[in-house]
Amino acid sequence: MSRFLNAAYRDLEAYVPGEQPRDMQYIKLNTNESPYPPAPSVVDAVNRAEVEKLRLYSDPECTVLREKLAALYGVKKENVYLANGSDDILNFAFMALCDREHGAIFPEISYGFYQVFADLYGIPATRVPLCEDFSIDHREYCHRDGMIVIANPNAPTGMTLSLSQIEEILQTNPDQVVLIDEAYVDFGGQSCVPLIHRYPNLLVVQTFSKSRSMAGARLGFAIADAALIADLELIKYSTNPYNINRLTQIAGAATVDAEEYTRACCREIMATREYTVTELKKLGFRVLPSSANFIFAESDRIEGGELYRQLKARGVLVRHFDKPRISNFNRITIGTRSDMDALLCAVKEILGE
Amino acid sequence: MSRFLNAAYRDLEAYVPGEQPRDMQYIKLNTNESPYPPAPSVVDAVNRAEVEKLRLYSDPECTVLREKLAALYGVKKENVYLANGSDDILNFAFMALCDREHGAIFPEISYGFYQVFADLYGIPATRVPLCEDFSIDHREYCHRDGMIVIANPNAPTGMTLSLSQIEEILQTNPDQVVLIDEAYVDFGGQSCVPLIHRYPNLLVVQTFSKSRSMAGARLGFAIADAALIADLELIKYSTNPYNINRLTQIAGAATVDAEEYTRACCREIMATREYTVTELKKLGFRVLPSSANFIFAESDRIEGGELYRQLKARGVLVRHFDKPRISNFNRITIGTRSDMDALLCAVKEILGE
Repeated sequence: MSRFLNAAYRDLEAYVPGEQPRDMQYIKLNTNESPYPPAPSVVDAVNRAEVEKLRLYSDPECTVLREKLAALYGVKKENVYLANGSDDILNFAFMALCDREHGAIFPEISYGFYQVFADLYGIPATRVPLCEDFSIDHREYCHRDGMIVIANPNAPTGMTLSLSQIEEILQTNPDQVVLIDEAYVDFGGQSCVPLIHRYPNLLVVQTFSKSRSMAGARLGFAIADAALIADLELIKYSTNPYNINRLTQIAGAATVDAEEYTRACCREIMATREYTVTELKKLGFRVLPSSANFIFAESDRIEGGELYRQLKARGVLVRHFDKPRISNFNRITIGTRSDMDALLCAVKEILGE
Repeated sequence: MSRFLNAAYRDLEAYVPGEQPRDMQYIKLNTNESPYPPAPSVVDAVNRAEVEKLRLYSDPECTVLREKLAALYGVKKENVYLANGSDDILNFAFMALCDREHGAIFPEISYGFYQVFADLYGIPATRVPLCEDFSIDHREYCHRDGMIVIANPNAPTGMTLSLSQIEEILQTNPDQVVLIDEAYVDFGGQSCVPLIHRYPNLLVVQTFSKSRSMAGARLGFAIADAALIADLELIKYSTNPYNINRLTQIAGAATVDAEEYTRACCREIMATREYTVTELKKLGFRVLPSSANFIFAESDRIEGGELYRQLKARGVLVRHFDKPRISNFNRITIGTRSDMDALLCAVKEILGE
């Protein structure tokens, strides 16, 4: 830290991304990436001719991609905002749609970045505890005074709220932005995108990182009432207008065209998830009901941190959060069937089965 | 704009990027892109196998690219910060290294985004007029109370400060960050990167967009004392840790490996610049002395805005700023020799020669 850094940021605790060790080849089940590559048509689209065009700026309006996403979700181009990963959208929301007076309200156990954004902008954060069973009690988010931020499905639990529960939150907070982070919605959750037509306070955030196999391309998007989207655009054009590079725009557009491939990958991942859950339960694990591309599991036969370390030693990387209430759990990304068999095999070995 | 937008941003005037009309095929000399594609080895590097790996997150530390840049500039990895375009770095600098008390000081005529960043964060901006000949009087930036921001070469003039002038600014502002924006330095300017070892208050910002033919890949970098770089990293890990996608990191690394190609492109552009300047002067134009990949020119035979419009009608796009002191000028990017011949031909036609 330099002596030039603003006092406001001196005590900031930044987000810590999932580890990416390079000491050996791991079966990587720790950052919720897709085990499947982008569709072959996406790989075709990012060709030599397009790479040569890198000399030219990208389209700051992302016209082609926005129009394709709008068509896919049955909204207008003006309802779609594209960003350099969905973190970029969350950042703007905490920066510009939430203030020190109103604050932000989100679940105590959720995506760890929400608290970082709140700290960054000096936003008072109200962290609402999860229920005993790790579900979100939606009534806790009704009639609040501040921006509501809910990941649905929630992370790292994988558990969902229903559309009617979200609608109740929207109805009872007409003067607050309700941000629903649907990073994992394509694995069995129900998207609240259709609600944007009735609720100008709803900001839905999604990403190409999980279901669309493009974590490394950095592409997130928001769908909302045109006025809310205009706010995000204003901040973008005041910070980084060319926020999405050419090749990501091209890969993104080709991915939307390959929607059936995406759906097939999601179905495969959901089937593999159910298989994994069944097998882990046979081994005595408690697994929270997941609608995401990961599961959150614990066993009373081995402490969570210990299981994480022993799996890592066997070349299987999962994510362990050393935090109250969840330190006995591990978050396990759903990979291919063979990835999960390797995981299960390692778990059995560790448990001495 | 929605009613949810913070009051602080309601009057914000965002940056307006150069136009990208699609009504016809233009000779595009309006956004300072390189007329040359990335090196063939860069195109080779962004291959199918790499596109398939998009399913995996990019390296948030950008290890390979940072190490290559550090080696190229004779600094350590800890002195290099990578961003999603250099605007991203300017944004962080205004956000975190400059405050309402200290404010920012930059030339009245310069990159238009500086004022937008200042407005965004409520930073009082002192805009120092250029000299009569459009040069920057470096003495105006000595002994100031605020972050100094200078583009060197300056835009849209193309004119430079010498290293000793910049050093005087650094010496007389030991308690302020001095940000030198070297977006155009590879076309004849002198980089102040070597000064970072002596001045912990120096933040040098560069980009792959101009000399490295990668405007569409979005890649900027900063070189500075490790403590200043740590500040930028802190803000990055608190806003968007995976800020640079995989393919841009790969293209960037291959571009650094192809440094000789970059230098050859720059030499070619500089030669074409000198040719264009000579020809425009023959037509009676006044051309400011440029060390950039653009020139700034005016003629008393035709008003600047009128020349811009007539060139556009003939399929040649240049940039006109309808602003005090410079409204008679046009900023003309240096393209290929054939691009510039087309420009010169159109100018002659417009002037009736």
